[in-house]
Amino acid sequence: MVFLNLRQRSDSVQALVIATPGQVSKQMVKWVSGLADESIVLVQGLVRKSPELIKSTSMEDVEVHVSQIHLISGIDMRLPFSVEAGSRVDIDETSTNQAVFKLQSGIGDLFRQFLNNNGFLGIHTPKLQGAATESGASVFNVSYFKGNAFLAPSPQLAKQMAIAADFERVYEIGPVFHAEDANIHRYLTESMGVDLEMTIEEHYHEVVELLDCLFLSIFRGLKENYSHEISIVRKQFPAEEFKWREGPEGTLKLTFRQAIDIIVKDGMPKEILGDLNMENERRLGRLVKAKYDTDYFIVDKSPIEFRPFYTMPDPEDPTLSNSYDFFMRGEKVLSGAQRIHDPALLCEKMCSKGIDPESMKAYLDGFRMGSQEHRSDIDVPEGPQKIGSLSLYDDM
Amino acid sequence: MVFLNLRQRSDSVQALVIATPGQVSKQMVKWVSGLADESIVLVQGLVRKSPELIKSTSMEDVEVHVSQIHLISGIDMRLPFSVEAGSRVDIDETSTNQAVFKLQSGIGDLFRQFLNNNGFLGIHTPKLQGAATESGASVFNVSYFKGNAFLAPSPQLAKQMAIAADFERVYEIGPVFHAEDANIHRYLTESMGVDLEMTIEEHYHEVVELLDCLFLSIFRGLKENYSHEISIVRKQFPAEEFKWREGPEGTLKLTFRQAIDIIVKDGMPKEILGDLNMENERRLGRLVKAKYDTDYFIVDKSPIEFRPFYTMPDPEDPTLSNSYDFFMRGEKVLSGAQRIHDPALLCEKMCSKGIDPESMKAYLDGFRMGSQEHRSDIDVPEGPQKIGSLSLYDDM
Repeated sequence: MVFLNLRQRSDSVQALVIATPGQVSKQMVKWVSGLADESIVLVQGLVRKSPELIKSTSMEDVEVHVSQIHLISGIDMRLPFSVEAGSRVDIDETSTNQAVFKLQSGIGDLFRQFLNNNGFLGIHTPKLQGAATESGASVFNVSYFKGNAFLAPSPQLAKQMAIAADFERVYEIGPVFHAEDANIHRYLTESMGVDLEMTIEEHYHEVVELLDCLFLSIFRGLKENYSHEISIVRKQFPAEEFKWREGPEGTLKLTFRQAIDIIVKDGMPKEILGDLNMENERRLGRLVKAKYDTDYFIVDKSPIEFRPFYTMPDPEDPTLSNSYDFFMRGEKVLSGAQRIHDPALLCEKMCSKGIDPESMKAYLDGFRMGSQEHRSDIDVPEGPQKIGSLSLYDDM
Repeated sequence: MVFLNLRQRSDSVQALVIATPGQVSKQMVKWVSGLADESIVLVQGLVRKSPELIKSTSMEDVEVHVSQIHLISGIDMRLPFSVEAGSRVDIDETSTNQAVFKLQSGIGDLFRQFLNNNGFLGIHTPKLQGAATESGASVFNVSYFKGNAFLAPSPQLAKQMAIAADFERVYEIGPVFHAEDANIHRYLTESMGVDLEMTIEEHYHEVVELLDCLFLSIFRGLKENYSHEISIVRKQFPAEEFKWREGPEGTLKLTFRQAIDIIVKDGMPKEILGDLNMENERRLGRLVKAKYDTDYFIVDKSPIEFRPFYTMPDPEDPTLSNSYDFFMRGEKVLSGAQRIHDPALLCEKMCSKGIDPESMKAYLDGFRMGSQEHRSDIDVPEGPQKIGSLSLYDDM
């Protein structure tokens, strides 16, 4: 008798090949036992209830009694590492990877579904750009025929042009590129950006509200439709259930000052805090979880000095900004802000950060002239867009 | 009295500001008449049925009688061209552009919807690659810290690895990069690739069948849900209604030989034909339309010499290939083929096209060893995938 572990995509089932007179010969059993790992086979057999739960396969309560087996494709060379060395008890890395890909695809679908239902248009912006829109050091340089081009570190500026061209609400899921030579998970050279931009009617809280609803709809969607995949991932990477607040009290919202106070109360000297570094963000996550029982919260009004040139200052306190950060398990998963839409103020802020306004003339002209498309009528290309936006990285 | 043309996204409406004692002063009418084109205004007024159809706005049968108007944002500089010069009677370029973006987004949604419903998983593959996977001349070079990287000209090889890793059916919508210095619409340096890859159970006709169903579902979806946007685009770019065959006769399928015969019958000498160039593809489109009354058809079995190294030869005639091209209005919108999955044959074909198999070792190893993920069981990483695929460019 030989046991096989048959896998197809993320599911696996145990199979038995038993010598049976007139049906399965001893030679066949011997041949099967000599098949290499990862061979591809076509099997015919009877599915039976297993006498006890099988822990090593995803289908625990059935097994296949094989009557015929054909080798479709064997293995041409030795596997580069022994399977025993790579495997741990009860952990199935292939299934974990399959589940991770399904979750990633599911998050994209939930993201699009919510935004399509809320008047957003999915767009694709150019990844090859003529100018380095962030500091030169963090942008990849591409040889472009006789000249140079740059890989877009975010769709930010293109999205804003879409708003100026009257699109009102746009989103994009696409690659973003960061030439930062740092081997930590927040600075991948290439990652998927999950991004949106919208006009604001009255106040940037409209954007925070919409983003909060977006996150909650993704959380609920994952819980309802992807609990199988989450449980597979959790077998290899144990984690507590992700918690968020529902109902009338809603999502926890802190100002940057309140967030700092929580960390200071925990014993961190205020004067060395500055902008939150990754360690302090995690600390904040742990403290908030202990106090409010939530893995998900929002921090807004961070100091303007930590923000890029296009961030709108808080009209009531110009040392602060109309910006917001979303946290999950102590990781910043989203960062966004109201944009400056006044070209004079934009020029001033560019200069103060050492960017030559001349090098970004097309961007500034978008604000000076209204939309990119011109027509003989009065329309809404520029005004209400005290623009809000987010960049949500797929390491959420 | 002043007339305004108010626009929001793709809709526009005519507004009237009429001097009315106690409500709208003569000064206000004068002020409104001085507003620059593309200004952003907030308007209050009464919507009334218009006395006759208004041709210059998208809402033809109503107009707004303005009681209040506020300037939200004016124009800071002269527009770069006069609006009269840029505008043509009855053509609204801004609305056309809005409609084009909506159609593009709609095609993406219809594509994903069909494939999600047919067991496909949406994935994202790396755009930065370590090796130039097509001939070096057509791949962009990126400075990658102390070394070099290349921009992926297609997700092809990554998709195949996904199949080898047991995903069975995958798709991707993402940017593709071609360093071809040719200023024609088929050779954009950056475009959106709409791409899928699937295993084949028995025959590559399964893929052709699935792709045909995909196209038909997109055609139907566009007709049902996007007729408004199509009619807006058609105002600026007049075109006959797109025709395809429905019902029992189904989509027209020709072999490459039959396609050549149609062109030869039209008077083109056979010996100068070779692979179909763009001019002959258009000619074929016109001839098929005249004969079969369809803008959409499939051609398969093209000569193997015109195909890349990984294309599977026709087992019955090795001068032909198990490949297929889909045409719309005489433009090739999709090109695909069964892949070679035998590593020895792959090596042989690489060498014959001047590619060093050593430089693509990781790719070849995927076929030599089964999937990238290894486990102590028998599974299905490699065998049935006589892989089929397509690249569908967004200029459809």
